[in-house]
Amino acid sequence: MRILILGGDGYLGWPTAMYFSKRGYDVTVVDNYFRRNACNELDVGMLYPIPTLVERAKIWHAQTGLEIKVVISDLTDPEAMRALFDGRVEHAYAWAKDSAFPGVPETVIHYAEQPSAPYSLINYKYANITLTNNLLVTNNLMFALRDFARDTHVVHIGTMGEYGTPNIDIEEGWLDIKHKGREDHFLFPRQASSLYHTTKIMDTDLMWFGVRMWNLSITDLMQGPVYGIETDESAIDDRLKTLFNYDEIFGTVVNRFITQAVVGYPLTVYGKGGQTRGYLNIKDTLQCVEKSVRTPAKTGELRIFNQIMETFSVLELAELTLKVGRKLGFDVEMKSIENPRKEAEEHYYNPTYQGLVDIGVEPHYLTEDVMEGMFKVVASFKENIRKDVIFRGIKW
Amino acid sequence: MRILILGGDGYLGWPTAMYFSKRGYDVTVVDNYFRRNACNELDVGMLYPIPTLVERAKIWHAQTGLEIKVVISDLTDPEAMRALFDGRVEHAYAWAKDSAFPGVPETVIHYAEQPSAPYSLINYKYANITLTNNLLVTNNLMFALRDFARDTHVVHIGTMGEYGTPNIDIEEGWLDIKHKGREDHFLFPRQASSLYHTTKIMDTDLMWFGVRMWNLSITDLMQGPVYGIETDESAIDDRLKTLFNYDEIFGTVVNRFITQAVVGYPLTVYGKGGQTRGYLNIKDTLQCVEKSVRTPAKTGELRIFNQIMETFSVLELAELTLKVGRKLGFDVEMKSIENPRKEAEEHYYNPTYQGLVDIGVEPHYLTEDVMEGMFKVVASFKENIRKDVIFRGIKW
Repeated sequence: MRILILGGDGYLGWPTAMYFSKRGYDVTVVDNYFRRNACNELDVGMLYPIPTLVERAKIWHAQTGLEIKVVISDLTDPEAMRALFDGRVEHAYAWAKDSAFPGVPETVIHYAEQPSAPYSLINYKYANITLTNNLLVTNNLMFALRDFARDTHVVHIGTMGEYGTPNIDIEEGWLDIKHKGREDHFLFPRQASSLYHTTKIMDTDLMWFGVRMWNLSITDLMQGPVYGIETDESAIDDRLKTLFNYDEIFGTVVNRFITQAVVGYPLTVYGKGGQTRGYLNIKDTLQCVEKSVRTPAKTGELRIFNQIMETFSVLELAELTLKVGRKLGFDVEMKSIENPRKEAEEHYYNPTYQGLVDIGVEPHYLTEDVMEGMFKVVASFKENIRKDVIFRGIKW
Repeated sequence: MRILILGGDGYLGWPTAMYFSKRGYDVTVVDNYFRRNACNELDVGMLYPIPTLVERAKIWHAQTGLEIKVVISDLTDPEAMRALFDGRVEHAYAWAKDSAFPGVPETVIHYAEQPSAPYSLINYKYANITLTNNLLVTNNLMFALRDFARDTHVVHIGTMGEYGTPNIDIEEGWLDIKHKGREDHFLFPRQASSLYHTTKIMDTDLMWFGVRMWNLSITDLMQGPVYGIETDESAIDDRLKTLFNYDEIFGTVVNRFITQAVVGYPLTVYGKGGQTRGYLNIKDTLQCVEKSVRTPAKTGELRIFNQIMETFSVLELAELTLKVGRKLGFDVEMKSIENPRKEAEEHYYNPTYQGLVDIGVEPHYLTEDVMEGMFKVVASFKENIRKDVIFRGIKW
């Protein structure tokens, strides 16, 4: 099966590419290096340097004999998106091995979005970059599917943050609503607490439009914050590790807390720390996406799963990091700081997340052992960690 | 009170500017001529030529002694938007009388959007123009308010099309939802049947975000299709008439049907014609906006009104046009054509629309007399009507 991964250079994109390649899929990755460029522009450190995407594909080929095709192009340009479906390769900078068009993809995995809430609220310029990047890529994909590939299945990564923290149980994407004696089936109400998360609500709107108008087939995965570094495939060669950020902008909370613990930077809990979210291991992202690809949404279906494996409050995560870190001999402190975000610090939170387990996903959990493993990897790069870039002071 | 009208050259923008100017408000209008340029680009006829915005302001001044300040600039550029709040007039092409900054506006009326469903679905390029124009202007406004004018009240024009045609009664913007023994208050579920209408859902998302994060004060008016040509102010001088489109892209259905009837072009009913929507006279748009300005939303409130005065099915509108047209001696025919849109042709439709009447709006209704008046104006420009531009064949 031909798989096209949009955003194939990112934290999730590259491990996904290797995971599918290893399992016999014909994989093409596309990226414009948005994340790398943003990290440079904002002076956000990475735990270790990573090779270019073309270089990674070459290392992968040398180690496994498998080919991952690489396209470097900006998918906010509709012509660049359409080239991936109609083979006009002049719009792509590089294909890894040769310039032959691999053919219309049977599945598209769409990660090509600016993924950070603080980035989206640095100021109005970064807000606009987030809006236009995320919505144009998704819209260009909808129109390319309409015009060239209505049967292609899309797996998109949404976010649990689309739902916010409502006072009712969160269902998997949809809700039957009774009102004044009548009833209808709707998207579950959505209200996000960052501009980035709001663009994901808009993605859902665009995809729901495409499904209704053109009978597209889409799986939208409402993902929680992901943690982890290694996957089975990255273990093949150290240079195949995915990028790892540990700062306030691009570092997800577990990854960031472990890094802070390693360098003796107090764990920063925003306000009361009662903010509860669903989390998952990077290995489970790969499983969830692959199971979704193997059992696709139906024609004319927007299928939504909540992609989390367990829930924690920020305080619980800080306490777990503290416990594991101290056990390993690190000098870990915890500090509550004034919340730079406008969000509920204590709230009801009861999401459903059964759909992905039902199609075969076997969850990993954030045990002390798992965290200990992450600590060891992060500690091995301790000399690379820059304390000065962890806190960025972005408020909203 | 200082009023800033974004999109002040449009079908609703210009009559709004005169209406407020006449009532003693200090009015500034901003426009980038998007609509005029689009009409030229797509070869969409107007019923009569209209003077430039600066020229209109001069005619208005000559006739009434009142000043409407004019700024020509593109509000998708955040610097152009911010200049309207911080007075850096180098970003504005022209202020009508002099270059003095009128001061921070106390109210902003936001019409600066691409308003056509068919335009948004001509192809992927027009889809992207609609997305970026509508969302960047709204987002730039949110950030300008956050940074310079948190107390300024915004009146935005949304659309009843945001709700679609749900199988439950449509409330005014909000809905209390009970689920599994718990309850919360949410935006009424939204799912639109065009890309344009979807951008208005996204506007609501952006404004709801601004309200929650920065305590902004916003009134969002869910408007139905507007009909009409003349207002009390345009009657002062023929050259003050608002622009009037009669084609499938920019002509709203009543305006278009009357024009078709005048030139003997059969009234085109899409499919069964059971599509029911809420409608209002352009005079009522002006009333609704002014009443909203006079009784603003509270700090931290997104207030939503459904801005319609009565509902009709397309078939009912065609039959009314047929009856009035024939009475006036026009040779009117009606023709059902295959629906070029994907929409329900028979559906439940029961919207609430009480809020605007409660704050003082006195509805006009689409009587035979009102339609007869419109027929007479349109007929007086009969020689300008181009039959060849009415049907455009845009499908989705």
